[in-house]
Amino acid sequence: MNLPDLQLARRTGRLKSSLVRDILAATARPGMISFAGGLPAADLMPALPLAATADPALYQYGCSEGEPAFRAAVAAWIGEAGLQVSSDQVLALAGSQQGLDFAAKLLIDEGTPILCEGPTYVAALQVFELFGAAIVCAPLNSNGPDLAAFEQLLETQRPRAAYLIPCFQNPGGACYSPAARVAIAELLDRYNVLLIEDEPYRSVALDVDHPMTPICSLLKRAPWIYLGSFSKILWPGWRMGFLAAHPALMPHLVRLKQSADLHTQRPGQAAVAHWLGSGTRAADLTRLREGYRLRRNAMQAALQRHFGAIADWEMPRGGLFFWLKLRGDLLATRAVLDHALEQGVAFMPGEAFFPHPADGRQYLRLNYSRATPEEMERGLATLAACIEAELTEA
Amino acid sequence: MNLPDLQLARRTGRLKSSLVRDILAATARPGMISFAGGLPAADLMPALPLAATADPALYQYGCSEGEPAFRAAVAAWIGEAGLQVSSDQVLALAGSQQGLDFAAKLLIDEGTPILCEGPTYVAALQVFELFGAAIVCAPLNSNGPDLAAFEQLLETQRPRAAYLIPCFQNPGGACYSPAARVAIAELLDRYNVLLIEDEPYRSVALDVDHPMTPICSLLKRAPWIYLGSFSKILWPGWRMGFLAAHPALMPHLVRLKQSADLHTQRPGQAAVAHWLGSGTRAADLTRLREGYRLRRNAMQAALQRHFGAIADWEMPRGGLFFWLKLRGDLLATRAVLDHALEQGVAFMPGEAFFPHPADGRQYLRLNYSRATPEEMERGLATLAACIEAELTEA
Repeated sequence: MNLPDLQLARRTGRLKSSLVRDILAATARPGMISFAGGLPAADLMPALPLAATADPALYQYGCSEGEPAFRAAVAAWIGEAGLQVSSDQVLALAGSQQGLDFAAKLLIDEGTPILCEGPTYVAALQVFELFGAAIVCAPLNSNGPDLAAFEQLLETQRPRAAYLIPCFQNPGGACYSPAARVAIAELLDRYNVLLIEDEPYRSVALDVDHPMTPICSLLKRAPWIYLGSFSKILWPGWRMGFLAAHPALMPHLVRLKQSADLHTQRPGQAAVAHWLGSGTRAADLTRLREGYRLRRNAMQAALQRHFGAIADWEMPRGGLFFWLKLRGDLLATRAVLDHALEQGVAFMPGEAFFPHPADGRQYLRLNYSRATPEEMERGLATLAACIEAELTEA
Repeated sequence: MNLPDLQLARRTGRLKSSLVRDILAATARPGMISFAGGLPAADLMPALPLAATADPALYQYGCSEGEPAFRAAVAAWIGEAGLQVSSDQVLALAGSQQGLDFAAKLLIDEGTPILCEGPTYVAALQVFELFGAAIVCAPLNSNGPDLAAFEQLLETQRPRAAYLIPCFQNPGGACYSPAARVAIAELLDRYNVLLIEDEPYRSVALDVDHPMTPICSLLKRAPWIYLGSFSKILWPGWRMGFLAAHPALMPHLVRLKQSADLHTQRPGQAAVAHWLGSGTRAADLTRLREGYRLRRNAMQAALQRHFGAIADWEMPRGGLFFWLKLRGDLLATRAVLDHALEQGVAFMPGEAFFPHPADGRQYLRLNYSRATPEEMERGLATLAACIEAELTEA
């Protein structure tokens, strides 16, 4: 039903139908093998401490900043990662996506330049573009951005903020080297550009042989917002995330939280705080990582069998995704999607991850955390056959 | 810690420090009697069906629209109120405040005129002004807005939307008469102005002798967004609300939900859906209303004792607030606040509820749902004495 006279805000013209949504809708069909989404493996997550959520005192309204116990536990958790913050610098979020919404509200006017990695997280692109950002992308290598390109963009575009995912980047899989972290921090300080550092995958580290110091902790001058999520290790359906930020930004962010949804639901904060304080945390994470490592390795083996002749990739050292580039320049992965879906296999074409879709035409993202080894074998064989059929035609 | 070079979006200049936040912070002091907030009475709420939240299937990511069972139960719940919608028109929210954020994103450019009641809900003002709305207010009587003023604002200001709270308005306490509902619907249709109808207090109806048909259900042409909350009757700390909307708006609203926080936490949706489908619903609401009626009556009696000579008000027929106007024009209620807080009593000055604070200078809002009868007696005597002392000085 259309309303021809309907007047909406200008930004709604930038509220695009998401290719990702359409693909994920297709994956709900029975029998579909999906490498498209980013669902973590529910069977690897620890049990929810239900009793921690059962205190009726948690069922009254709470405060916008979050529960004191949650904020303190998260400050300690971030501190273990290498970023020292006080509880006052922590804001409880309904998932880290909410932090992207707040960052956009805080920073973006129509036309504000924002520096991202190319490729980058699709839902960050979505919300930054909704608010009118002019996205510029620095090319990403497996150990971090191309530093010369990064500096040139700082110099020529004068972005108001840089949005980076330094640990097991989604979708590219990059894990910034220690040298890259130091170099990026120095550049952001020199140009005084605010850093939004997004870390949903930090705890899904499988085989990294170097420290992953948060870049926020290396900044001396530039302001920063650090985003974290529990959704890859604990109960994503509870929507628990957080941000920490430079003290000067906190009053703004707390007001944005209040105006967005008053506060984050409290029982979930209590459950997460309970887990963070429990003795089982280390063992839970070890078990989770072992499970992911097995799946990642199974995917790598199946990819070598079916994609070794048609694509290049680096095995991800963490996170939930493989990022493949088709060899040659003959075929856009988007062109294979419909055929693959008909054959019962879903994947994410690379174009979704770039502000200019053409930049991603040769890439595809494959999630490894949900499929069984049998599904991986069958699904990747099918997908490779679809690609080879299209290549023969092309 | 300040950052002199920090560049933020223009809208952050409109992100005001909220008087409400400051007052609520003061109410956390031990021994404070607070009539300031709007906390519902936790002891009158039904027990949470914890088992409904314990299904691990709910702990995986869900869909942006909400759980099918929640959406169906809410559609039926809205239907009972008189607004017939399909499940597809329902979106699960993290509290109805989130619906105001989405409405603002959908509708408001800098300078967009939005028609509100005067007074109106303070957090709606906050988010509409954040996005740059030019708020115009129609004066509110106890049975609805001044219709001539309302039409004149439609004619002269051409607002893009009207934001109304027709059931037990916060803070004014108005409950629109059936005739006012029909008249407002006809006006909105004639001028084709989108209605945002906010109904957090519908279920806290104490003694209303006429139907409270949702105005959205009376519209023939104008588009609409209907906002509802469970926070006044069930577990506000779980942050469960919803919106329903004209079908043409739903694709936009679902995308705004996705970009804001992906989806609403699922265990809370399951708990609410369980309660909506339970046999205890009618009895739970009867018990809740009986409890509120006793407290409302106790507040009315205490007010008559202590405020009968200095203020005028109508006893609210529902909702959680009394809205008083000081007699004469000698004193701004804001001027009494600091003294009252020192004396251990918190209230909300009327100025918070108007875009032009001076319009509310003679008013105060008093919440009746949290104080015991003894606290009401003592707190209101203290507050009246503070006012009389200031009046004597003035």
